[in-house]
Amino acid sequence: MDFLQRYKDYCALVDEYLSTFIKRTIPKTLYEPAKYILAAGGKRIRPVLVLCACEAVGGKKEDALDAASGLEILHNFTLVHDDIMDHAASRRGRMTVHTKWDSNVAILAGDVLLGLAYRALLQSNTTSIQEVSRIFTEGVIEVCEGQAYDKEFELRKRVSLDEYLLMIRKKTGTMVAVAMEVGAILGNGSSGERAALQSYGELVGEAFQVQDDLLDVIADEKQFGKTIGGDIVEGKKTFLLITALQRAKGEEKRLLQKIVQEGGVAKGKVDRVRRIFVATGAVEAAEVQIANDIAKAKEQLNILKGSESAQMLSWFADMLLSRKS
Amino acid sequence: MDFLQRYKDYCALVDEYLSTFIKRTIPKTLYEPAKYILAAGGKRIRPVLVLCACEAVGGKKEDALDAASGLEILHNFTLVHDDIMDHAASRRGRMTVHTKWDSNVAILAGDVLLGLAYRALLQSNTTSIQEVSRIFTEGVIEVCEGQAYDKEFELRKRVSLDEYLLMIRKKTGTMVAVAMEVGAILGNGSSGERAALQSYGELVGEAFQVQDDLLDVIADEKQFGKTIGGDIVEGKKTFLLITALQRAKGEEKRLLQKIVQEGGVAKGKVDRVRRIFVATGAVEAAEVQIANDIAKAKEQLNILKGSESAQMLSWFADMLLSRKS
Repeated sequence: MDFLQRYKDYCALVDEYLSTFIKRTIPKTLYEPAKYILAAGGKRIRPVLVLCACEAVGGKKEDALDAASGLEILHNFTLVHDDIMDHAASRRGRMTVHTKWDSNVAILAGDVLLGLAYRALLQSNTTSIQEVSRIFTEGVIEVCEGQAYDKEFELRKRVSLDEYLLMIRKKTGTMVAVAMEVGAILGNGSSGERAALQSYGELVGEAFQVQDDLLDVIADEKQFGKTIGGDIVEGKKTFLLITALQRAKGEEKRLLQKIVQEGGVAKGKVDRVRRIFVATGAVEAAEVQIANDIAKAKEQLNILKGSESAQMLSWFADMLLSRKS
Repeated sequence: MDFLQRYKDYCALVDEYLSTFIKRTIPKTLYEPAKYILAAGGKRIRPVLVLCACEAVGGKKEDALDAASGLEILHNFTLVHDDIMDHAASRRGRMTVHTKWDSNVAILAGDVLLGLAYRALLQSNTTSIQEVSRIFTEGVIEVCEGQAYDKEFELRKRVSLDEYLLMIRKKTGTMVAVAMEVGAILGNGSSGERAALQSYGELVGEAFQVQDDLLDVIADEKQFGKTIGGDIVEGKKTFLLITALQRAKGEEKRLLQKIVQEGGVAKGKVDRVRRIFVATGAVEAAEVQIANDIAKAKEQLNILKGSESAQMLSWFADMLLSRKS
């Protein structure tokens, strides 16, 4: 089985759905930015997982396409609003919505994307629509909690690793778990399958986010699409910085503390900090965390008894783990 | 029947529901502002109408309380985000969320309110949850369209009365109509009752918004809670300004055009402009529009055959029409 091809096929299905989903053209300041962000591509992780999960429990992917697309639209809502809050100028190689238009347009475009996400979801043909909608809604609320923690942590001097992990679970893990659970429900999976696939999603989502922190330090700049060491320059409290702070001593500890105190560091110091991340074992700890999450995620797939879908989900986890961008 | 007391009883039910709805306290930057706006009161028009509509078709108001509260939470989401976009410093005599905290907090508080609105709605015990959720969702999308038009119109030199009416229908009429329709569905009303009550809501919502424009010109400053003539000072394209512009001639027309060109006028000119609004018949046209809307809205109540609920809804329309604030 060519899993990469299957992944691309799923992406094409979702892209096709999204490209025709918004029928209206006016008001222009609402629908142009909404279409712009949906057309910008991305990894389509959440919708692909909805489709995979549905098939994994014996369902037809067509029955999950509305919900899959709804999850992707929801994800784009969070991107548009997060980018305003983070003052991010570009995403996926294009200007962010609030940069290309303005903050007001971006607020409203995000809002309508959330409405459109529910519109897509509610087109699902299922007797479990109340349950699916509730799970989706709890996901929306948790994503907001995750983002709120993220912004709160920026202003704090101390963040524990547990707090950090809670934040990324809410911000990323939950919606990936929701994707898996919704897919399993729409495919009429058993409660055991639902629980296992939900758990797979949570773990993969967490691993993905830690990997993101790691890529800031080890990725190839051209492939990653953003400046390497950006998190360090901004003094972002990533898995690496938090772990290194716990472990470093002497002068190294003082440098890291200074980064936290001053909310960042000059670009010239990035290499020094990267070496500290390696020397303290923070990089290794992140790699171990990811490997453990992925291993546990794959264990959850045992319930699928080695089916082709199980292999696909196993491949997908590896692909995310090994990504260079 | 003491309709005012009944209205207050409905408000108390909704206030009680909202006061305990958010259980979590952290993240603080998320839930403090969300609770703050929900506790600020307001007229509770939408939730009261959900309860009224449910009872009007023979349902029990308890069956509509989740949805009613969901609509009120949704309304508060729009207030928080609109206030950011409008740079509004106060609302209901208190600081707006983005003023008391900041824009980022207000964006996220609005987002979570939208999630919480769905959480409340989805607690409804009904076999029509998919239909109710769809109607609610289409309302969310239309409110966004209405706000987008509102912001676009601010930047335009010309807005026709039809465009203006389309905007306020989307921004206010739709959600009042949704309130009535959702209430009627939850009360198991007939399709005729649903259509009639939905139409009542649309008309009352439109009248309410035109009344708002009128109050800027004729209200008692203390009761209205905001500065009289504020719309004129800001050059807001209200029902009155648009109508007066169509009808004025000579020097008066030039003054109104200047207000539009310059995006506002000095406070000292407010009285002059108010006199033009009266002299051109714009004030009267607004009063006629409101009276016609309310009369048509009351006609819709014929389907309820003079029941106590019909009288309540008739009273409610009159109360909104005669409000001084």
